[in-house]
Amino acid sequence: MVVVMDEKAVEEQIQKVIAKLVEMKFDVHRSTGVNQTLLGAIGDRRNVDTRIIELLDGVHEVLRVTTPYKLASRAFHPEDSLIKIRDVEIGGKNVIVMAGPCSVETQEQMEIIAAEVRKAGAKILRGGAFKPRTSPYSFQGLGEPGLKILRRVAAREGLLTVSEVMEVAQLPMLVEYVDILQVGARNMQNFNLLRDLGKARKPVLLKRGLAATIEELLMAAEYVMAGGNYQVILCERGIRTFENATRNTLDISAIPVVHKLSHLPIIADPSHGTGRRDKVAPMARASVAAGADGLILEVHHDPDNALSDGAQSLFPKQFSALMEELCLIAGVIGRGM
Amino acid sequence: MVVVMDEKAVEEQIQKVIAKLVEMKFDVHRSTGVNQTLLGAIGDRRNVDTRIIELLDGVHEVLRVTTPYKLASRAFHPEDSLIKIRDVEIGGKNVIVMAGPCSVETQEQMEIIAAEVRKAGAKILRGGAFKPRTSPYSFQGLGEPGLKILRRVAAREGLLTVSEVMEVAQLPMLVEYVDILQVGARNMQNFNLLRDLGKARKPVLLKRGLAATIEELLMAAEYVMAGGNYQVILCERGIRTFENATRNTLDISAIPVVHKLSHLPIIADPSHGTGRRDKVAPMARASVAAGADGLILEVHHDPDNALSDGAQSLFPKQFSALMEELCLIAGVIGRGM
Amino acid sequence: MVVVMDEKAVEEQIQKVIAKLVEMKFDVHRSTGVNQTLLGAIGDRRNVDTRIIELLDGVHEVLRVTTPYKLASRAFHPEDSLIKIRDVEIGGKNVIVMAGPCSVETQEQMEIIAAEVRKAGAKILRGGAFKPRTSPYSFQGLGEPGLKILRRVAAREGLLTVSEVMEVAQLPMLVEYVDILQVGARNMQNFNLLRDLGKARKPVLLKRGLAATIEELLMAAEYVMAGGNYQVILCERGIRTFENATRNTLDISAIPVVHKLSHLPIIADPSHGTGRRDKVAPMARASVAAGADGLILEVHHDPDNALSDGAQSLFPKQFSALMEELCLIAGVIGRGM
Amino acid sequence: MVVVMDEKAVEEQIQKVIAKLVEMKFDVHRSTGVNQTLLGAIGDRRNVDTRIIELLDGVHEVLRVTTPYKLASRAFHPEDSLIKIRDVEIGGKNVIVMAGPCSVETQEQMEIIAAEVRKAGAKILRGGAFKPRTSPYSFQGLGEPGLKILRRVAAREGLLTVSEVMEVAQLPMLVEYVDILQVGARNMQNFNLLRDLGKARKPVLLKRGLAATIEELLMAAEYVMAGGNYQVILCERGIRTFENATRNTLDISAIPVVHKLSHLPIIADPSHGTGRRDKVAPMARASVAAGADGLILEVHHDPDNALSDGAQSLFPKQFSALMEELCLIAGVIGRGM
Repeated sequence: MVVVMDEKAVEEQIQKVIAKLVEMKFDVHRSTGVNQTLLGAIGDRRNVDTRIIELLDGVHEVLRVTTPYKLASRAFHPEDSLIKIRDVEIGGKNVIVMAGPCSVETQEQMEIIAAEVRKAGAKILRGGAFKPRTSPYSFQGLGEPGLKILRRVAAREGLLTVSEVMEVAQLPMLVEYVDILQVGARNMQNFNLLRDLGKARKPVLLKRGLAATIEELLMAAEYVMAGGNYQVILCERGIRTFENATRNTLDISAIPVVHKLSHLPIIADPSHGTGRRDKVAPMARASVAAGADGLILEVHHDPDNALSDGAQSLFPKQFSALMEELCLIAGVIGRGM
Repeated sequence: MVVVMDEKAVEEQIQKVIAKLVEMKFDVHRSTGVNQTLLGAIGDRRNVDTRIIELLDGVHEVLRVTTPYKLASRAFHPEDSLIKIRDVEIGGKNVIVMAGPCSVETQEQMEIIAAEVRKAGAKILRGGAFKPRTSPYSFQGLGEPGLKILRRVAAREGLLTVSEVMEVAQLPMLVEYVDILQVGARNMQNFNLLRDLGKARKPVLLKRGLAATIEELLMAAEYVMAGGNYQVILCERGIRTFENATRNTLDISAIPVVHKLSHLPIIADPSHGTGRRDKVAPMARASVAAGADGLILEVHHDPDNALSDGAQSLFPKQFSALMEELCLIAGVIGRGM
Repeated sequence: MVVVMDEKAVEEQIQKVIAKLVEMKFDVHRSTGVNQTLLGAIGDRRNVDTRIIELLDGVHEVLRVTTPYKLASRAFHPEDSLIKIRDVEIGGKNVIVMAGPCSVETQEQMEIIAAEVRKAGAKILRGGAFKPRTSPYSFQGLGEPGLKILRRVAAREGLLTVSEVMEVAQLPMLVEYVDILQVGARNMQNFNLLRDLGKARKPVLLKRGLAATIEELLMAAEYVMAGGNYQVILCERGIRTFENATRNTLDISAIPVVHKLSHLPIIADPSHGTGRRDKVAPMARASVAAGADGLILEVHHDPDNALSDGAQSLFPKQFSALMEELCLIAGVIGRGM
Repeated sequence: MVVVMDEKAVEEQIQKVIAKLVEMKFDVHRSTGVNQTLLGAIGDRRNVDTRIIELLDGVHEVLRVTTPYKLASRAFHPEDSLIKIRDVEIGGKNVIVMAGPCSVETQEQMEIIAAEVRKAGAKILRGGAFKPRTSPYSFQGLGEPGLKILRRVAAREGLLTVSEVMEVAQLPMLVEYVDILQVGARNMQNFNLLRDLGKARKPVLLKRGLAATIEELLMAAEYVMAGGNYQVILCERGIRTFENATRNTLDISAIPVVHKLSHLPIIADPSHGTGRRDKVAPMARASVAAGADGLILEVHHDPDNALSDGAQSLFPKQFSALMEELCLIAGVIGRGM
C-alpha cells in the first residue's frame, strides 16, 4: 500500500505510521517531496484493512496497490483459461451460446425449445428448476423433477446443461443433472455457497451482482478458486443505475476490462441485462462485438404463457436470425461460433 | 395495473390488450382521451409480470398500481408494529441501541465491551460469529464458540443478543444463542434463507442490500412474514453510489419513507454506512433526528487490533459521549432512549 | 395522469382528488376495484407537477402517463429524422464517423490528423477550441484561432466540422466555423444555451449528461426543437455508476431505447465513455452492432503529448483498422459506412 | 502520483516509465518489493493526466496522491472559513437558515412569506427569478421584476437575499439585487459561469451536481476561488441513485466529509433533496444533527397554487415548528441558531 501523508504532517506523525507499518510486517520506502511525504509499504499480504492506517494522525489517504485477488488475476495465469466440457470449449476461439427458457415447465416445452436452439447453433441448454423470485407469491420452479427433464431433453439433443444452484444444500442434487452450476446475481456474495462450489468438480457460471464492481466479481471467483475449483466462467448481466428505461444497464465495457485483469472467460446475459425481448438482439450483437466469450439467452416458443420472464424471452425464429448475425460479427473479430 | 396506449394505437390493438387483460382475470375500465387511451386493470393479483402487456402492439407503457408486498404494508396494518423481546420494545417510543464489536474474538474482549456499552445505555449486544468476508483469505469468525461467548457475556450484563446468520444450515444453532437473527446486506435476497426465517420464532433484523430499493427491502420482509414470522426489524446500512469518499451512502431518507409505506420498525447502521469511525457519530445523530427506531453500532476497546472492521468501530468513550447526544436529540422529537 | 388511491381511502378523499383534477382541467375517469380506486385523468397538459395531487390525503401514488416531450417523440414524427449536411446524412442507412483530436492544438497537428481520418473514412472532423475542464489550472483551448484552423483544415480535406459551444455568448462565433454545434455532457441542462440553439440554423450534437436519464436527454432535445431547430443529433457518452474500472459506463442500451422513443438519430462516444484507448475499439464495435447511427472518436498522431485526453485517443493506425471492422459489422445489420 | 508496476513488469519497462516521469518533471523514488515495484513520483503539478503513464507497457495502475484542488482544501487554510454578510455569519457557531418560495411570483406573495420566515428565525430570503426548468413549456421565472420584489421585501424585513444566476450575461444584473449568488446543481460545472463568479465581489452558494462527487464539488469551488473570490458556500442537495422513492438521495455524509477536506461552510437543501414536503422536516433535522452550517428551505403560504415546486414547500406553520426543533438539535452539538 502507499500512505500519502497530509501536507502539514509532522515528523513525529510520520514516524508513528512507519512504526505501525513495520509492526504489520511491511517493508517501508519513504519519498519526501516539497509538499508531501509518501510511504510505500511493500509486503506479501493481500487482505490488510488499510483503514487502520488511514485513521492515524497526519495521514491524508491510503492507496492499495495489490489486487485483493490472486488466482483469478492475469498476473497469476497470463494465458486465457479454457473451460472444456466434452467437446465444448469456453474461452477459446469460438463464441459459445447457452439458450433455453427461464424456467423448466414441462417435458414438452423443453423438447420444443431444445430442438430449436440446437438447430440454431446453441451448445448448452439452460433452464431453471430453482428460481430466485423477488416475490414469495411467484412460481418458484419445479425442483428436482425439472432437473430430470432438463437432463433428459439435453441428452437427446446432444446439448450440455446449465442450471442455477440457490443454496449449499442443493449442490449434491444439482451436480447429478447439470454440466455447469450457475450462481445467480443475488448470490454472487453468498460466501458459503461459493466456498462449497470450490469443492465441486463442475464448472461454475458466476453472475455479477447488481451492484458488484468488477473487482468484487473477481473476488467472488477467487472464493471458488481458493477451494480448488479453477473452472469459473464469469457473466455480465447488467448493473443497477439511475436509468429505468431498461431493467438494468448491461455494462458491456466489463467484457474488455475482465479480459485485461483476468484469464477467466466472460459471457454476457442480454436477457436479464435488458429485461425486454426487443432489446435483446442489439445487446447480444454488441456483446459479441465487444469480445464476449459467449452468451446466455432466454428463448421460449410461447413466451406469453411462460411461467417466468416471458417478456425477455426470444421467439425461436428471432433466436435463429440473431445467431446468424452473431456468427458474422464473431467472424469480423477473428472468432467463430 | 394501468395500460397507457400509444397516441397512434388503433382500435384493434386496444381490443387485443383488453382481451388479454380479461384473460388474465382483470376487470378493465377504459378512459378515452383526446390524445390517448388508458386502460385501468383492476384485480386481486399482486405478482403479474406487466411486461407481457408492455410488449403487445400499440402499448406505450404499463404502470403497476399495487405494491407487490402486502403483509409489510401500512395499508395492511395501519399501526406501528412493536417487536417486544423481554423488556425491550423496538418500534415504540424509545430509540433502541444495539452495540458491540464487529466480530466476537475472545471472552475477555466481549466482557470489556459489553460492560461499556451496557453502562452507556445499549440494550442489545452485537457480535458476529459467522462473518461474510469479501476475501476468502480474511478472518471468517469463531463460529459456535463465538456464539457461546456472546450469550454468556450478554446474560451477565442483562443484555439481549443479535448475531448474523449466513445460511439455512446455521439457523438451528443460531436460534439457541441469540435473541435477534441478523440477515446481512449481501443476503437480503437469499430467498431460501428468508423463507426459513419465516418459520423461526425469533425476530429478524433485515439489512437493506447495497443496491436494493426500499420496495425490494419490503419484499424481502414479505418473504419472512409470508412464512408466519411477523417480527421483522428493517435496517438501513448504506447503498452504493458513485461517491467514494465514504464506503457507502447512508440513505437516511429511507427512514421516513419506510415509516410511511410500512408498519415495521427501521433502524440505521452508521458504522457500515460510512466505514470510518470519524463519520459514525454525525450519521448516528442524523439517523435519530430523522426518526430511526434504533441504531446498530460497532464499538471496540482496541480497534487497532480488532480482527475485522476496527476502522469503523467507536472507542467506548466516543460511544458513551454519543449516547448522551442521541438521548437529547431523541427528546427533541418526543422520543426517549 | 393516473391517481392510485390508498386501499383505505374514503369516499370524501376520493371526491376531493376528483375536484382538484377537474379544477386543473382534466377529464376524470374512475375505476373502482375490490381493493383500490384508480382515477384516470385525461387532458392535454404535459407539464403538470403531479406531486400536488400526490400529497392530497388518501392518495397512494400518482403515475404520469404522457411523455413530457412531444416534438422529440416518435409519436409526433414516426419516421426516422434525417440530418443532412451537404452530402452527409446522419440517421440514414450509413453509419457516420466524426473523428479528430480532443483539442485543436496547431495547424500542423490538425493537418496530419485530418488527412488520416479522412483516408480511413471519417466524414466529419472534430476538435475542441473551448474546453470544459474540471480544473481551472488545465489547458482551456485555443479559442477562435483554433476554430480557424479547424475550418481551414477540414475544408482542404473535404470534411465537415463539429466543435463544442460552451455558452450563449460563443454562439455567433461558432456558427461561422462549424457545421455541427456540440453541447457537452455538463451543459446538457444549460437551458439558456439550449434555448439559443433553438434559434440557430445549424444541427446540434447533444451529449447525454453523466447522470441524465434518457427521458431527460429527450427533454433537452425538446428545448432546442421548441425553439424551431429540429436538427438534433443525440449522443450517448457514458453515465456515472459505482463501477470505476472505467471512467464512465457507456450505456449502449440507450441506442435501441432512443430508437424506440424518438425519431432523432443517436451516435456513441466510446472515447469519453471509457476514458482509455484500449477500451475504445471494443466499445465502438459494440455501439455499431447495437445500431448506433454514428460514432464520435478521438484520434491523435502523438497522444503522449496531446494537450488534453491523449490517453483516450486512438493512434491513426488503430483508427483505420477499427474503421474496417466497423464497416463489416455495419454490413451485418444492413447498414453501410 | 504513485505508479504500481505489473507483477511481471521487466526492468526495461520500469526504466521507460521512470524516464517519462522525469521528462514530466517529477522526482522519482523507487520501491522494489518481492512481488512488485512501486514508483513514487513527487512534484508540484496538480493537474497531470495520469492516464498517460497508465497506458505505458508494464504499468498496472497509477494512483494520484495530491488533491486536484488547493485553495479549497483544509491543508491550505486549516481554520474554518467564515462568510460574513452584514451581521450574518455563515460557517460560524450559528446554523443559518435561508427560506422562501421556489419562485418569486408576486409582491404580495413575497410579503406574506418573508414575514413568516423572518418571524420563525430565517436570516436570508430565497426566491428564484430565473428558473432552470427541465421542460421548455414550464414557468421560467419573472426575471428582473422578480429580483426587484425580492430585494424590496427583504429590505423591509431586514433579511438578506439569495437567488440563482443561470448564465454569465445575468451576472451584472443579479449583483444589484442579491447578497448571495446561487449556482444551481445543473450549472455546477458551467465553467464559464464559475470563472466569472470568481471576479464577483459577492458570496457564492454552490450546489452540488446530481452526479458530482464531493471532490468535483470542491473543484468547482476552486474555479471560483482561483478567480479571487474566496466566499464560497457549498450546498448538498441530493444525488441521483437507483432509489426512486425520493426524487434524489440527500447525501448527509457529505457534510462531515466536506468539513474534513475543506475549510468552506456547507449547508443542506432538504427541499430539493427529497422533493416532497412530508420528508423535508426529518431530513432538515438530520442535516443539522450531522453538523450542517445552514439550511436552505422552500416555504410557501399557498403551495397548491405555487408556480413551481409547491409539493416540496413547507407551510409557514410547519416551518416555524421545524425551526424550534432545529434550534434544540443545534444546541445538542454546541451550536446556536
